[in-house]
Amino acid sequence: MSAPSRRAVIGGAGLAGLSGLALAGCGRSGEGDAKAANGDPPGVAVTARAREFHGARQHGIADAPQAHAVWVAFSLPKAVRRDDVRRLLTVWSDDIARLTAGSGTLTDQEPELAEMVHRLTVTVAVGPGFFERIGASAKAPSWLKPLPRFDQIDGRLDDRWAGTDLCLQIAAESAATVSHTQRQLITAAGRLAKVEWVQRGFREPVAQPHWGSMRNLFGQKDGTVNPVVDGEDDAVIWAGDDAGWFAGGSAMVIRRIVMDMDSWDRADRYSRENAMGRRLDNGAPLTGGDEMTPPDLLAKDDLGFPVIDNGAHMRRAMPRAPHERFLRRPYSYDDSTDPDGTGLVFVAFCADPVRQFVPVQRRLAQADLLNLWTYPIGSAVYAVLPGAADGEYLGQSLFA
Amino acid sequence: MSAPSRRAVIGGAGLAGLSGLALAGCGRSGEGDAKAANGDPPGVAVTARAREFHGARQHGIADAPQAHAVWVAFSLPKAVRRDDVRRLLTVWSDDIARLTAGSGTLTDQEPELAEMVHRLTVTVAVGPGFFERIGASAKAPSWLKPLPRFDQIDGRLDDRWAGTDLCLQIAAESAATVSHTQRQLITAAGRLAKVEWVQRGFREPVAQPHWGSMRNLFGQKDGTVNPVVDGEDDAVIWAGDDAGWFAGGSAMVIRRIVMDMDSWDRADRYSRENAMGRRLDNGAPLTGGDEMTPPDLLAKDDLGFPVIDNGAHMRRAMPRAPHERFLRRPYSYDDSTDPDGTGLVFVAFCADPVRQFVPVQRRLAQADLLNLWTYPIGSAVYAVLPGAADGEYLGQSLFA
Repeated sequence: MSAPSRRAVIGGAGLAGLSGLALAGCGRSGEGDAKAANGDPPGVAVTARAREFHGARQHGIADAPQAHAVWVAFSLPKAVRRDDVRRLLTVWSDDIARLTAGSGTLTDQEPELAEMVHRLTVTVAVGPGFFERIGASAKAPSWLKPLPRFDQIDGRLDDRWAGTDLCLQIAAESAATVSHTQRQLITAAGRLAKVEWVQRGFREPVAQPHWGSMRNLFGQKDGTVNPVVDGEDDAVIWAGDDAGWFAGGSAMVIRRIVMDMDSWDRADRYSRENAMGRRLDNGAPLTGGDEMTPPDLLAKDDLGFPVIDNGAHMRRAMPRAPHERFLRRPYSYDDSTDPDGTGLVFVAFCADPVRQFVPVQRRLAQADLLNLWTYPIGSAVYAVLPGAADGEYLGQSLFA
Repeated sequence: MSAPSRRAVIGGAGLAGLSGLALAGCGRSGEGDAKAANGDPPGVAVTARAREFHGARQHGIADAPQAHAVWVAFSLPKAVRRDDVRRLLTVWSDDIARLTAGSGTLTDQEPELAEMVHRLTVTVAVGPGFFERIGASAKAPSWLKPLPRFDQIDGRLDDRWAGTDLCLQIAAESAATVSHTQRQLITAAGRLAKVEWVQRGFREPVAQPHWGSMRNLFGQKDGTVNPVVDGEDDAVIWAGDDAGWFAGGSAMVIRRIVMDMDSWDRADRYSRENAMGRRLDNGAPLTGGDEMTPPDLLAKDDLGFPVIDNGAHMRRAMPRAPHERFLRRPYSYDDSTDPDGTGLVFVAFCADPVRQFVPVQRRLAQADLLNLWTYPIGSAVYAVLPGAADGEYLGQSLFA
């Protein structure tokens, strides 16, 4: 009655066998692409489809954000050693190559569920404990550590949502695809990694080209000011060649931000737009134009007050130097009707969060009118591994 | 800084004002339809779009199932009286008419979020306590009571998911739309109704015409045998003219069924298909054909055993009389990695669950091979109110 368990397969076949299978999965990518095309919403660029796993960078960062995402954080149990971690990355790399191509994993008994590829991406990221465990701490990016504490706003941070040894970002246009993929990758990890937390998010499906940027639960357009992900702003998001083995990697910052819907409901539209510094309907700065018009931060009203308040979120968040930019890829969450049950999974990618993200977050902590209605309860920083070359697995150079 | 709260509006304007506004919202339905068309996935029939709220029946039953749904169960606090319940139904009717037409509610400060209509439907249903509170117990359908206890399987039923006084089913192609609508309708209820539980579900987006019936988390096609919802099987789903004020109403049964993914993972493909009586890949009966081919329940294999096991789910679930049919509209849930965190929100609609649903459920409780891997933790029965005529609110005839 029982099929061989995944762990038995891992133990029996060993690394060589699995590497070979990874290559086999890669060879079927043409078929996978055809299936992926079926799952594409209209209006999505061809380049945003599920695509070949192997390459210099992982997917799930530059891709147009899918409607659903989950972040699954794992710790490495004490008994897990360097070789176990290598095995885990090998298996995950193989599984992800197959799942994002629309095939079942090696031991998947529901391969039909994997056919629902829906622009699936899986992004593997690691925390400081990962490098300690594999005995390569010196290779960790220097910025890989918890964010500094922002005293003004961080009073309700909860370790429940803190950084861990590993994190998977799984995203697709279908919640069913995300659920199946999550299940497969947790099962594949078996006793090698323990789930610490799961955060789920959603956004407006991208099939709505008239819609523009995502609207969060406050109705605000979110992520208006974002770098260009087609090459121009590469250095903002990705580690460059000077990063050695980490070239093609990135930093992933996850802040779980409660949005207090009850108190927001009691604020009028003027207060809401003033707090953001933008109009709610079209996302334009209060100084006019449309969503993409640069704001006039010096403009005054008839009484001599700034049109865009000194504490407006957009003023405080705006980069004051070219390096203060990063890629926002936020998702709403609505897990329960508890007071902290609704909000934003704020996710940002950049080459160096200490240099790029922290100065902006510090300004927001000091004075951001939105802080009246929001507070973070989770904060985590991970290093997104560089992509895996053909026939390799993620992080392979760390085990050379 | 504070806008008038919804409760202040309710208290101040009274019923006459709100009824007038309901008509105004209805007059804008042309505009709403145009917006709704933007949210339609390709391949969805025009009739399945968000549409005029008023009519003989509520929406969300005959519509092709949307990718996301939530069921929000409410109790009526002790202080709430007949007139309060009428007020609640008036406000909800107005809000639902507006939201499903792509407009904000009367006091919605984020009307932009309501533009994301995405085939939104909201279905209002009531429990026995509703009729007691309004002093019209005699008018409740005779079948409106908890299902009988099915001793073989119901040992883990939890009152946490039991029936209540009111229940909203909110469904749309976008989780963001569902979330916004849920928030608006809970806020509108204010102190008139208290949230008892929320169940969320998802299914494969219907934009996949090649996909056919929904696959549940076990990879099984679910809902293959369903009545025709375009008129032929009306009497299966809807109360007829002989039901008096309830004509156009329906019963909604919600069973929360845990699916034990760990033990399912240990079953091989043969055992899985045998338990269902169908192939996993195309959903065809084990006696051949395709998903829609009738099974040959008498067929034997070379050894003389039935090809479709006597305990196979499909054999047990199959109607043994014409009245043993109902509309399945199930959704998967994946709320947590706890043992009961994944499964199916089984939702069925029919004219009379005692007559149509209970005999089938009794057979499944007695012997269904799937019971090895599944068990219900929630069970609720509600009466879906008939639709509201032009200018009326849901349930209005009960307050005449």
